[in-house]
Amino acid sequence: MSDHPTLPVAQLQAFVIAIFVAAGLSEADARTLAASLIEADLRGTHSHGVIRLPFLVDRLLEGGANRQPDIRVVNDAPGTALLDGDRALGAITATRAMEMAIEKARTQGIGFVTARNSDFIGTCAHYAMKALPHDMIGIAWTNGFPGMAPWGGRSNTIGNNPIAFAAPSLSHGPIVLDMALSVAAGGRIRLAAKNGEKIPRDWLVDSGGQPTDDPQALAAGGALLPLGYKGYGLAVFGEILCGVLTGSRILGEIPAWFKDTGSAIGNGHLHIAIDIARFVEPEAFKLRMDGLVSLLKATPLMPEVREILLPGERAWKTQQHQEKHGIPVPSPVAADLMALARRLGVAAPASLLPSFSDSLDCTT
Amino acid sequence: MSDHPTLPVAQLQAFVIAIFVAAGLSEADARTLAASLIEADLRGTHSHGVIRLPFLVDRLLEGGANRQPDIRVVNDAPGTALLDGDRALGAITATRAMEMAIEKARTQGIGFVTARNSDFIGTCAHYAMKALPHDMIGIAWTNGFPGMAPWGGRSNTIGNNPIAFAAPSLSHGPIVLDMALSVAAGGRIRLAAKNGEKIPRDWLVDSGGQPTDDPQALAAGGALLPLGYKGYGLAVFGEILCGVLTGSRILGEIPAWFKDTGSAIGNGHLHIAIDIARFVEPEAFKLRMDGLVSLLKATPLMPEVREILLPGERAWKTQQHQEKHGIPVPSPVAADLMALARRLGVAAPASLLPSFSDSLDCTT
Repeated sequence: MSDHPTLPVAQLQAFVIAIFVAAGLSEADARTLAASLIEADLRGTHSHGVIRLPFLVDRLLEGGANRQPDIRVVNDAPGTALLDGDRALGAITATRAMEMAIEKARTQGIGFVTARNSDFIGTCAHYAMKALPHDMIGIAWTNGFPGMAPWGGRSNTIGNNPIAFAAPSLSHGPIVLDMALSVAAGGRIRLAAKNGEKIPRDWLVDSGGQPTDDPQALAAGGALLPLGYKGYGLAVFGEILCGVLTGSRILGEIPAWFKDTGSAIGNGHLHIAIDIARFVEPEAFKLRMDGLVSLLKATPLMPEVREILLPGERAWKTQQHQEKHGIPVPSPVAADLMALARRLGVAAPASLLPSFSDSLDCTT
Repeated sequence: MSDHPTLPVAQLQAFVIAIFVAAGLSEADARTLAASLIEADLRGTHSHGVIRLPFLVDRLLEGGANRQPDIRVVNDAPGTALLDGDRALGAITATRAMEMAIEKARTQGIGFVTARNSDFIGTCAHYAMKALPHDMIGIAWTNGFPGMAPWGGRSNTIGNNPIAFAAPSLSHGPIVLDMALSVAAGGRIRLAAKNGEKIPRDWLVDSGGQPTDDPQALAAGGALLPLGYKGYGLAVFGEILCGVLTGSRILGEIPAWFKDTGSAIGNGHLHIAIDIARFVEPEAFKLRMDGLVSLLKATPLMPEVREILLPGERAWKTQQHQEKHGIPVPSPVAADLMALARRLGVAAPASLLPSFSDSLDCTT
């Protein structure tokens, strides 16, 4: 048995659902949350997977998020809607909004559904990809706590406001772009700090606004740099479309969901579904997508590059592998999950137990 | 009189309209084209202003673009449409598509109108901004000739596919982001080559895929670098939404509009209008936008930075100045415009005449 337990998808999913139910969510809402976390792990975005479960449970138990939310439609036009999330954990409201966008797209060609009074939604890709089985293109965008500097600034006063796009292909899996608007993710910098590594000098400035390769500078009042003035500009429109348009909190008004677990987040998000059949025949679209992939992959390569990748290509391969072989859960994460299970009186899957218990078995 | 003649907006506009009419466009289409070019100059985007007039006229005279296009609605849903541009110069089809998106947004909350069989559309900002007087948010996106490398590639095999967003504020003018997805614009690199200047090493690779500070490397088979893998990913979705979804040409299928003036371009574009009133009260939205601007501007500054700017802030100031004081036309551009006027038998504005004619007057 390896140091990192690997769990079958269904087993991990059932455990996550049981945890959320024990923390006070309805079975349906627990399933929605679990789907969001498990898919992130499945696609290799472990930073947004079950590692976040303890924080989300804290939000439910400490009152930042509403355990029995009443999500309401505040404004409804044929092609658009605004939901009030009633402080539900973000995946619940975002799933509802995306499903509503897909329904609208069926009759209107497009659906554009936004939400306010919401919370952290996890990976945007999860919602954008919901459009794919309906032969639709999906888009999701959210604002969040200020974790990035605006262009020219040296403090984190704007969200890195991730956006995701998803479109189907015939034989290359879903093409999925999911990106935050900083050069690098805050998580990568915190990991480098933990590991005592240096970072590239265009990721971060220290509290004096000087470029630095020391990841410790982030915790000491430094700021994450945006992806140039273009990344900053997109982050501004993330605030406008997800925050200002929806009547949500923006910029520094938004607490960090994983720190202030007792506070409402109040951010906003948007979800778009576009019905391919209103433009071209869906099968022709997918065949043409394969052509797009082939043309891009035929580009002469940079030295030491082995292949041109499409957005989401690596995640798709990871997903196919893990669906068969299970999801690896690093031991420290497994330990956190077991502590959470004990706290909530939920049975942890046997495969989450650390490897030394196997050794103990051998000595008896 | 300076070396660079400065023309009142109305005078330059009347001249551009006369040129397009002489080249075979209807008066209405000529006005549409002129509005696109003049607004680019007004906002300081001179690379997309009247400097492009001779190329566009060549497209009309040499048959790449259709002088008497019949733009048709191919597919029409309540919230979406697909137009066939019939090879019209892009501004004509893009203006029609944006107006249609605005009309749809009035009744549906959102309008999403695309076009195929089109041509170069100029600045995307021009169309996105058309939404503003209607208290709507505007978005425009286009694909174009392959002028950028995909991430990991060393040849220009994907368009830099510019996208624009526009939203109104109460007292800060329109907030407008208009960006291509390469690190730097090809035009800036060609200008540096002409001036014998070096460029930053993250703009370009030479034909062997090596970073270079020599702008001459572009013409010698080099490639423009994308704004990281995120810029590349957005460019891929520019191809998908503007090209694949609309049944248009993509990637290397698209000729360069300013070189192959006798060939159809066949690219596609998309236009979105979002009716603010379907989400929040428009005046409250604009007031809140002012708050967003204030909060961002209060960010502590990097050394040597004087002010946090909002997307489009500089362009708005330039526009207000030039609307009063006229648009400067560099002498080489003025000479090209006068040659074009002679070729088409159109009277050039007196103020386009070079300054030496003033001197000549003084000697008589």
